[in-house]
Amino acid sequence: MALIVQKFGGSSVANAERLMNVAQRVIETYRQGNQVVVVLSAQGDTTDELIEKAMEIDEKPSKREMDMLLSTGEQISIALLAMAIGKLGCKAVSLTGQQIGIHTDSFHTHARIEKIDGERVRAELDAGRIVIAAGFQGINRHGDITTLGRGGSDTTAVALAAALQADLCEIYTDVDGVYTADPRIVPNARKLKDISFDEMLELASLGARVLNNRSVELAKKYSVNMVVRSSLNDHDGTLIKEVAEMEKMMIKGVAYDKDIARISIIAVRDIPGVAFKIFKLLADKDINVDIIIQSIGRGDTKDISFTIARNQLTDAVDLINKNLDYIGAREVNFTHDVAKVSIVGAGMANHPGVAADMFEALAKADINIHMISTSEIKISCLVRWDEAEKAVQAIHEKFELGRAAEE
Amino acid sequence: MALIVQKFGGSSVANAERLMNVAQRVIETYRQGNQVVVVLSAQGDTTDELIEKAMEIDEKPSKREMDMLLSTGEQISIALLAMAIGKLGCKAVSLTGQQIGIHTDSFHTHARIEKIDGERVRAELDAGRIVIAAGFQGINRHGDITTLGRGGSDTTAVALAAALQADLCEIYTDVDGVYTADPRIVPNARKLKDISFDEMLELASLGARVLNNRSVELAKKYSVNMVVRSSLNDHDGTLIKEVAEMEKMMIKGVAYDKDIARISIIAVRDIPGVAFKIFKLLADKDINVDIIIQSIGRGDTKDISFTIARNQLTDAVDLINKNLDYIGAREVNFTHDVAKVSIVGAGMANHPGVAADMFEALAKADINIHMISTSEIKISCLVRWDEAEKAVQAIHEKFELGRAAEE
Repeated sequence: MALIVQKFGGSSVANAERLMNVAQRVIETYRQGNQVVVVLSAQGDTTDELIEKAMEIDEKPSKREMDMLLSTGEQISIALLAMAIGKLGCKAVSLTGQQIGIHTDSFHTHARIEKIDGERVRAELDAGRIVIAAGFQGINRHGDITTLGRGGSDTTAVALAAALQADLCEIYTDVDGVYTADPRIVPNARKLKDISFDEMLELASLGARVLNNRSVELAKKYSVNMVVRSSLNDHDGTLIKEVAEMEKMMIKGVAYDKDIARISIIAVRDIPGVAFKIFKLLADKDINVDIIIQSIGRGDTKDISFTIARNQLTDAVDLINKNLDYIGAREVNFTHDVAKVSIVGAGMANHPGVAADMFEALAKADINIHMISTSEIKISCLVRWDEAEKAVQAIHEKFELGRAAEE
Repeated sequence: MALIVQKFGGSSVANAERLMNVAQRVIETYRQGNQVVVVLSAQGDTTDELIEKAMEIDEKPSKREMDMLLSTGEQISIALLAMAIGKLGCKAVSLTGQQIGIHTDSFHTHARIEKIDGERVRAELDAGRIVIAAGFQGINRHGDITTLGRGGSDTTAVALAAALQADLCEIYTDVDGVYTADPRIVPNARKLKDISFDEMLELASLGARVLNNRSVELAKKYSVNMVVRSSLNDHDGTLIKEVAEMEKMMIKGVAYDKDIARISIIAVRDIPGVAFKIFKLLADKDINVDIIIQSIGRGDTKDISFTIARNQLTDAVDLINKNLDYIGAREVNFTHDVAKVSIVGAGMANHPGVAADMFEALAKADINIHMISTSEIKISCLVRWDEAEKAVQAIHEKFELGRAAEE
């Protein structure tokens, strides 16, 4: 008897009909002799609607109260799915983050899981019930409700799979798996049979949108077998594992992220410790910085630029403005008008020509590059926001990523 | 420093503007030097919308899952009010039933409060915060979410007032207080300055709709000072206390309840123990029976009729049909087409003419009486559903209940 964790996103549970479909799929897995834990997101636009309710009252609401508010979205979907499974004749029980015992730190709206009790879940599974777990939420040591931030339900699914030593963690989405690029932008994008955790990590963090970054990190740390597959069909999906099988292509895919912003701190004193001050300030407020670029000093000052998630822009700019004297800088400027386009592939480091090929593709498409960042398995370029799709297409074409599908 | 519990219903918190109004009223009480605990219902139609979502999936959903679903309504409103109070510059914290420690039995969808911890609430109050408590909900001994049934937020408010030994429990509604009859039906209905717990109990259970029955029972048991007043103005409201001041009128008011149904069990064997069997069956399923009438035996059988809450009709009829042989009855019939009209007043028992006056009023209005039930302080008649309002008007007129207002 295997233990399988299945995670379904908001669009898969958006209405009664889709909930019944999910219920049927879950029951199928259960009737094959497996124990099943289902992790759900909030229905369709529920989270956005709740955020709007909060914004009508306060544009900067208490984060603790925001979590109290947003966690209701998942609570609604788990109750409804438990009803749907009951209607189809199986026993199911829904559990909130608190009831499961998902303990997190106290960073409201983007908390991190510290520990999962899992006793209640195991007891329910042993009693022959399908467990429906609320994704995205947990409790801190005061018993207050926390949420895990964007994509948090993926993280819940993997964390539960790890805590319960599940045999498989299936992430159901509205796409068939992980592609070489977003098929809506690149029509001949190819679905990957498998991919390594490291490559998936880069793709996730770079906006491939199929999986949340933190969930892949967790899966890697605890060696959780993950599959990304569609809730709309029975196609195989993409397996994510320690080391992916060798494929012909070196480049796994092209990703882009339009949900970022760029901040520049202008005329920082060119002395040791300045970068530390800036990024310690941001880290203390749990603001994640992605690409960082520091200009070569001119006279006694230099400029430091970095990218962050778009929804943290206001917090970050406020924070730096308040601390300009402490940092020793003249001013801050920032823009939303950026997107990040990246290529990912484990073999890349040994092929210096890859970066040049990417830049060539962008140049031929007349796209200007604003920042560049490279690592062992990825190269990222910042481009103008409205040129992101064109950039992805140009790069996908350049590396002939669609070809395998045509063979 | 007094401790005041304030309860606001669903229409008082239906949107951002009304939430800000409630926030202002709460802050006013707080700034007068009081500790304040606010108890909220779900916003406007939220509960109905959630019920509809459930019904789309299963017309008889699991009651445990129904509670999981419905409890989100209050969680949304408490988070939003905490934000609103924060926006206006005061410190507030929202707490779910689980966080407050409202322990109930396990009768899902109509649980009863067994114990309130209240430690967290006291700690928050002592830290200078306004506490926003979710009404209507608690947890059972398994940690599962329960709800208290219709009007449950009133019960939460009174139970919290009792547990915290509050000085006053204010129930805010959309009317100014308790009236001699529903002012929408009887335009010259008069607002009462005060009323005794017992009289209010009868009015509440008879559909005066201002207060939930169980909340008044609780208030009586723990001697909680209650006031019913409007959230829309600063009028005094009606005080509910141990013994009301003497007023000129003997009859306190006319109430009606259209939310009932009548069940008759036909041709029951006329032997001892039959009524016990029937009402034990119903009690075990926690179905509350109101008026009971047993016909005089004809031959070796008799008929037993009783009224119950309309939403329990299906459950009750199913239950009895399943047990017809056990009960020893021929068949069940039932109808929605009934309403209960009642007069309430502590002095009534000593005035036998009151019942006759009430029946005369109904006769003159050409309204047929289907069942009659009397007690120390009330007389109830079952009439046709669509004649309830006319009956109330006729009785209110007959007893000249509007007169005091004109003096």
